[in-house]
Amino acid sequence: MESVSENKCFGGTQGVYKHYSQACHCNMTFGLFLPPEGKNKTFPVLWYLSGLTCTHENAMTKAGAQQKAAELGIALVFPDTSPRGEDVPDHADYDLGQGAGFYVDATEEPWKKNFQMWRYISQELQDVVKSNFPVDKNAQGITGHSMGGHGALTLAFTFPETYRSVSAFSPIVNPTNSEWGQKQFAAYFGDNTKLSDQHDATKLLSQRKYPGKLLIDQGTEDPFLDLLRPDDLVVVMESMGQMGTINMREGYDHSYYFVATFINDHIEHHFQNLSEG
Amino acid sequence: MESVSENKCFGGTQGVYKHYSQACHCNMTFGLFLPPEGKNKTFPVLWYLSGLTCTHENAMTKAGAQQKAAELGIALVFPDTSPRGEDVPDHADYDLGQGAGFYVDATEEPWKKNFQMWRYISQELQDVVKSNFPVDKNAQGITGHSMGGHGALTLAFTFPETYRSVSAFSPIVNPTNSEWGQKQFAAYFGDNTKLSDQHDATKLLSQRKYPGKLLIDQGTEDPFLDLLRPDDLVVVMESMGQMGTINMREGYDHSYYFVATFINDHIEHHFQNLSEG
Repeated sequence: MESVSENKCFGGTQGVYKHYSQACHCNMTFGLFLPPEGKNKTFPVLWYLSGLTCTHENAMTKAGAQQKAAELGIALVFPDTSPRGEDVPDHADYDLGQGAGFYVDATEEPWKKNFQMWRYISQELQDVVKSNFPVDKNAQGITGHSMGGHGALTLAFTFPETYRSVSAFSPIVNPTNSEWGQKQFAAYFGDNTKLSDQHDATKLLSQRKYPGKLLIDQGTEDPFLDLLRPDDLVVVMESMGQMGTINMREGYDHSYYFVATFINDHIEHHFQNLSEG
Repeated sequence: MESVSENKCFGGTQGVYKHYSQACHCNMTFGLFLPPEGKNKTFPVLWYLSGLTCTHENAMTKAGAQQKAAELGIALVFPDTSPRGEDVPDHADYDLGQGAGFYVDATEEPWKKNFQMWRYISQELQDVVKSNFPVDKNAQGITGHSMGGHGALTLAFTFPETYRSVSAFSPIVNPTNSEWGQKQFAAYFGDNTKLSDQHDATKLLSQRKYPGKLLIDQGTEDPFLDLLRPDDLVVVMESMGQMGTINMREGYDHSYYFVATFINDHIEHHFQNLSEG
């Protein structure tokens, strides 16, 4: 792992780092914020997964997450959304290929060599972060925006022991029932509907409750509401008796202005959950 | 004036607007944040001038200013840093031409037709903002970063009745004594040193005190310290008995991570000053 840049920010350090990914067969870049040094030797850590077209940089520069993270003493990780590079397959549409990894391990050509974002996030980058930074592997939360909200929910529902706290902004909650999902799962998994179902937050939750409270914020003026389908998750949360809240935020859209407005609530949510353990 | 976009943000509205500028002979874009509607009919307003290479967008998306502005009820204006367009002259260097207006009215070819940022900011955009938004023209403050800090200080020192409060992040304080200044003033003013002196914050302050407290934040690890020359302003502040503070911030650099860290202090400073009047 090599350091690309480190900037002092709210008394802590916002870094950008690069490493060769065995899972994705290319160099991967991620951002990591470390709070100011204090009496604790390790920090709880919140993973932030970004949405379509984003890199590691969008949330790092636009979400305004560092202030509250510095105040509470929680580290932040900002992974990239896909493998990248000239040798990595891509697609002309913004919602498939580079920038659109959907946090799954592809099984189909031409994607399967590089598009292994599930393993990358949940195994390889876990190891890189734990080996290089003072984070507490027993106090990890995960959140994300849009496609990243989908990633956060599916990872947390699958690995609740690792991700002991979860939240999401405008997540794609039912991708097997949406054009944002069907198209990508068909490309990455072919006609393997079992794999698709394993990456659908609504379907996962219909099988097993998450052992914590969900926190989801969703703007009522989000132009992608039909693709995100928050109501599908509401139905399953109710039928399963899942603890949690989906806040429908009047007048807010899908932008980072929306994320920035509510990021502090989410960081508090994770800090609270991770402190209880 | 036409609306380009409006996004709900911290209960208020972050808008982007476009209008034809008579001063600059081209279309100009600016950002404007209005706090949530409250009992006040008009809001005090803080102008934020950006630095080299920036557009209206950088501070609007990266500085994290909207949260405190919403809380205190202060509007924010984010002008562009220069005229732009195919018909507008440019230069291969990033620090001259488009993106580098330096907040002056050029008198030399090929710049003088379009590069009229002093008039644009202090007259034309004032009128556009006052005509279209509920801002209090008697409660205006100004701040900025780097080249924009230079613009904020020189505008406030020249028009203290208009800009009743001033602050800056990493400002170019003595451009006649720096490569960030000498190069641009030679292009925009030719050999007219009188005009150059009128756009040098240190020289302006050596002639007349500003009737309020200055607030300047400057990172000690800023790679451009030699070009910004904060010490030159310190000397004049002391000799003139100018009220104010220059905070040298240990370990901080020139980035928006630095600006974001201290933006709340600056918004509080302006709100305080504008509330007193």
